[in-house]
Amino acid sequence: MKIALAIEYDGSAFRGWQAQACGQTVQNTLQQALAQVAQENITTTAAGRTDAGVHAALMPVHFNSNAKRQPSMWVRGCNAHLPATVKVLWAKPVQENFHARYSAQRRYYQYILLNRPTPPGLFANAIGYCHADLDVPAMRRAARSLRGEYDFSAFRAAACQAKTSVRQLHYLRIRQRGQWIVFDFCGNGFLHHMIRNIVGALLYVGRKRRSVPWLRELRLSGDRTLAPPTAAASGLYFNGASYEQQHQLPSCYRPAPLPLAGSRSVQQVS
Amino acid sequence: MKIALAIEYDGSAFRGWQAQACGQTVQNTLQQALAQVAQENITTTAAGRTDAGVHAALMPVHFNSNAKRQPSMWVRGCNAHLPATVKVLWAKPVQENFHARYSAQRRYYQYILLNRPTPPGLFANAIGYCHADLDVPAMRRAARSLRGEYDFSAFRAAACQAKTSVRQLHYLRIRQRGQWIVFDFCGNGFLHHMIRNIVGALLYVGRKRRSVPWLRELRLSGDRTLAPPTAAASGLYFNGASYEQQHQLPSCYRPAPLPLAGSRSVQQVS
Repeated sequence: MKIALAIEYDGSAFRGWQAQACGQTVQNTLQQALAQVAQENITTTAAGRTDAGVHAALMPVHFNSNAKRQPSMWVRGCNAHLPATVKVLWAKPVQENFHARYSAQRRYYQYILLNRPTPPGLFANAIGYCHADLDVPAMRRAARSLRGEYDFSAFRAAACQAKTSVRQLHYLRIRQRGQWIVFDFCGNGFLHHMIRNIVGALLYVGRKRRSVPWLRELRLSGDRTLAPPTAAASGLYFNGASYEQQHQLPSCYRPAPLPLAGSRSVQQVS
Repeated sequence: MKIALAIEYDGSAFRGWQAQACGQTVQNTLQQALAQVAQENITTTAAGRTDAGVHAALMPVHFNSNAKRQPSMWVRGCNAHLPATVKVLWAKPVQENFHARYSAQRRYYQYILLNRPTPPGLFANAIGYCHADLDVPAMRRAARSLRGEYDFSAFRAAACQAKTSVRQLHYLRIRQRGQWIVFDFCGNGFLHHMIRNIVGALLYVGRKRRSVPWLRELRLSGDRTLAPPTAAASGLYFNGASYEQQHQLPSCYRPAPLPLAGSRSVQQVS
């Protein structure tokens, strides 16, 4: 029987998604909990593989099991065995043709950045941070040159194992509210470190260390060595994926539960 | 010279604000950093004293020092010596008649609650949680009976050391957005555990374990032993205080950087 489930996790507690011998990964932790419920070994596949320190507001996963359990039993049973840093949101039986990774049509990420002179004392492991003044309109203009189907080699980590470096970026929105800047990414897929490298490059544009047209040139160069530093993992959230209607899944999208509304209330009160 | 400063902190890392011999409190930690900058012992006073696990989005503090430092030096010097879980937001010299605690006219708190069937895997130490369905309109109606100047003995911890149990609650607003419920409190002061006890009682009303009129009766009874369990510390934020204009302070109010905007975007995307 094939089961899909969605999980939420705090990446600061793990060495990324992918199972490792050390065992301190989200996949290892989830598989151990599933094995307790199924009373057999379980191997999971996720829609995306997040790095150490990267979070998930909603990560779709699938696995096969001979165990017959109600969906609510997978959820509650797993959650009883999972630590406070990973929880299952829902579970549902799916057809054999569903694959959490290969069936995903679009993937959603968010990068949450605190932009103010003093570093964060709250949520330091849950956000990115930039102390310098940022020209957000310039960042938005530069970001336009990344929308579309391109070779993203210039934003690809050296360790990236993807067969092709061509990806389609459906949108990249940048919202600013008070001290917070939120980057919304949607694409058919992302290369290793691609989002954090794009955010790092946009911060260079925002700080006026690079020009708006430079970002397009960087993309065209395909040269990672020309790109600015990778943005911190702590600000990045995997927010879900979209699948064909035929799979009849519950919601596979959930934004990171941070942080814009707060700043709005400042104006209400002061 | 008297200095006011504002700090932000993650309460899950500390045994509350108040200095203790163990040293693992926010006050101990801040005073150690200030002593490094001032090269002398410093004693601080805060607008409010938060319990273990309670956070501050903005906590006004004052101290006296013989050291002459620019405000930016207090901020940057302290932040260099503080851990990632406490940061100074601003510093400013103030007149002798300013007192972070006694000059505060109003105090602001927020309680952030995740309300859904599955427990949180993200921000577990930064939010409160309730799995049961809640009747939020009923909670709002019940909350009206607490607005005003009353004896709040029924919501007071046994260990509370305040001379009087009369406090004025200026407002208590309850907002719901998707899976999140945010309680905004403003009052001239709060008794020990008062907010967490009020939230705990409101959750009983929301779960229909108690009626709407019961909350007023509970307040009138003055009997803490009749009240439901105290809500978890992890959901509570001290958001600041208001002071007379004469003190010419920077902003002393900052909402907790969680979580409403996210849920709004769900509707945009799906």
